[in-house]
Amino acid sequence: MSELRREPILQRWVAITYRPWEEMVEAARRGVVGRREGCPFCPGNEAATPPEIYASRRPDSAANTPGWTVRVVPNKFPFLRIEGALERSGEGIYDRMTGVGAHEIVIETPSHDADWWSLPHQQVVEILGAYRSRHMDLRGDIRFRHIILARNHGPALALLPHPHSHVLALPVIPKRIEEELRGTLEYDRHKERCLFCDILKQEMGAGTRIIGETPYFLAFAPFASRYPLEICVIPKPHEHDFGALGVEALHELAGLLQRVLGALARLLPGASYSLVLHSSPLQDYAEPRYHWHVELRVRLPLGGGFEWATGFLVNPLAPEEAARLLREAAG
Amino acid sequence: MSELRREPILQRWVAITYRPWEEMVEAARRGVVGRREGCPFCPGNEAATPPEIYASRRPDSAANTPGWTVRVVPNKFPFLRIEGALERSGEGIYDRMTGVGAHEIVIETPSHDADWWSLPHQQVVEILGAYRSRHMDLRGDIRFRHIILARNHGPALALLPHPHSHVLALPVIPKRIEEELRGTLEYDRHKERCLFCDILKQEMGAGTRIIGETPYFLAFAPFASRYPLEICVIPKPHEHDFGALGVEALHELAGLLQRVLGALARLLPGASYSLVLHSSPLQDYAEPRYHWHVELRVRLPLGGGFEWATGFLVNPLAPEEAARLLREAAG
Repeated sequence: MSELRREPILQRWVAITYRPWEEMVEAARRGVVGRREGCPFCPGNEAATPPEIYASRRPDSAANTPGWTVRVVPNKFPFLRIEGALERSGEGIYDRMTGVGAHEIVIETPSHDADWWSLPHQQVVEILGAYRSRHMDLRGDIRFRHIILARNHGPALALLPHPHSHVLALPVIPKRIEEELRGTLEYDRHKERCLFCDILKQEMGAGTRIIGETPYFLAFAPFASRYPLEICVIPKPHEHDFGALGVEALHELAGLLQRVLGALARLLPGASYSLVLHSSPLQDYAEPRYHWHVELRVRLPLGGGFEWATGFLVNPLAPEEAARLLREAAG
Repeated sequence: MSELRREPILQRWVAITYRPWEEMVEAARRGVVGRREGCPFCPGNEAATPPEIYASRRPDSAANTPGWTVRVVPNKFPFLRIEGALERSGEGIYDRMTGVGAHEIVIETPSHDADWWSLPHQQVVEILGAYRSRHMDLRGDIRFRHIILARNHGPALALLPHPHSHVLALPVIPKRIEEELRGTLEYDRHKERCLFCDILKQEMGAGTRIIGETPYFLAFAPFASRYPLEICVIPKPHEHDFGALGVEALHELAGLLQRVLGALARLLPGASYSLVLHSSPLQDYAEPRYHWHVELRVRLPLGGGFEWATGFLVNPLAPEEAARLLREAAG
């Protein structure tokens, strides 16, 4: 039975949820994870996943058979369960909540070895379309306050190499988003302006940290980048809600992400990275003063232990230099 | 030139500092990192490190020669530099500060392959004594607001296998400590009690999450553990300052940490883990309402990508179960 727990010091919610982690660790040690044979995300193996929730597929193909280009299924080992009421309780100074939530997997392509930069443009548009569609569907459930859209790629971060993303609908607002909201609202209170819009303006003016842009989006290396080659992609107009993104902008976003990821792949072939989409919370917690964006960061094959242990971040590559390297690699 | 940078959203300081990370990554790829031959921390290779700052050594031995049991040296590739004035400046909405700080390495034992649980008790007492001594010395420098004491052990976290710790004196308070302070002070404002003392009381009452104890210290698995087998070791009396710890308590802490780490090693042989000591900030920022403690967490060889990407933590092992496993392994 999974549950959410919060202690009173850091006040962050943690999901305590049984997953077969010992088996997973053991499988990784034996080197049987991630093999192409038996990959549950490859066409022909549709029965290895729970039945699909959403698919972009040939009109003549049946659900849960080949013929799809993008497929969304419930996670077989979900962090949280979709069934049940949300119940809150205390235990002395601690707080608990039933572990209610949705946890879905977006299988991004039939191709086992691809990555976004190597896929046809239309395929990435369909992936982002699946993100938006799941975002719009899940926000109808009043139990959920936030939706996380995230993808890990590469051996250091992803258990299965077949390209996929996570969609996680949560009954709580994750701490990171809350922190971003706090910073945004504090700034708005003092200045009556959007902090992200001001950052955009300053970055467009300085230029040294710009990686790429389209009419609608800017990709840049953040001033206080926490990791080498950290990248932020943000809509230039003030928008708090990824779900409201139009078709044309979606095409631009797909193209820009492909270009940026292609540059990263040329610079550090085979690097593991993660991509996360931060959008406004939902329901009564929706915040029009927030500004949605995509965060992208690389996990280097070495180091990071100190940061992991202490939370004190040391970045060996200045963002101005990272931006220059990525601009050059983007060609 | 290293510097500290802060962006206005998360308001966390990041050290942007050139380190030879490409060479380090390359060395790791070639598998030449961590070999015993040429280990800069082994006796006889003292010339491979900068001259020692502190050592516990035989009276007849000369500085920077063998004959030591614990040795503290400046880091050859420091995150921050000890020289120079602390200068602050702005750049539009961003903040900068010169990267002034101390970064020292505690070489914990002459033995290349040891870990705390396998060392003689007196050796671990000397290591903790070196921590305390460096803590007391560095706090004399008015530029520093906080001292981080941290050690990483195991191939997933530490670059060099020879047991060592980091001592980092910072001109800023790390975000994690600031968050703990915020939680503590908020609680004190409402209840006029120490939050950590109340947690101690509740854990001692419940018992299900206790791993071990001595008259002075409690080791327990935190209620909202963020990672499997997360451990907190905390003094039972209210104390904010690790530097003020007495000799007897230091002996108890050494023994308890050895027992806990031994249990961990029996449960997950070869596991990588980190150990961090959280103490009150210094100078004008000292906070008697804080309660110092040690945090210990394991890095599993697999997974963690989702958490790393999103900041949303999923723990597959309930702390009550973790405490039971560790109690049993401690024998």
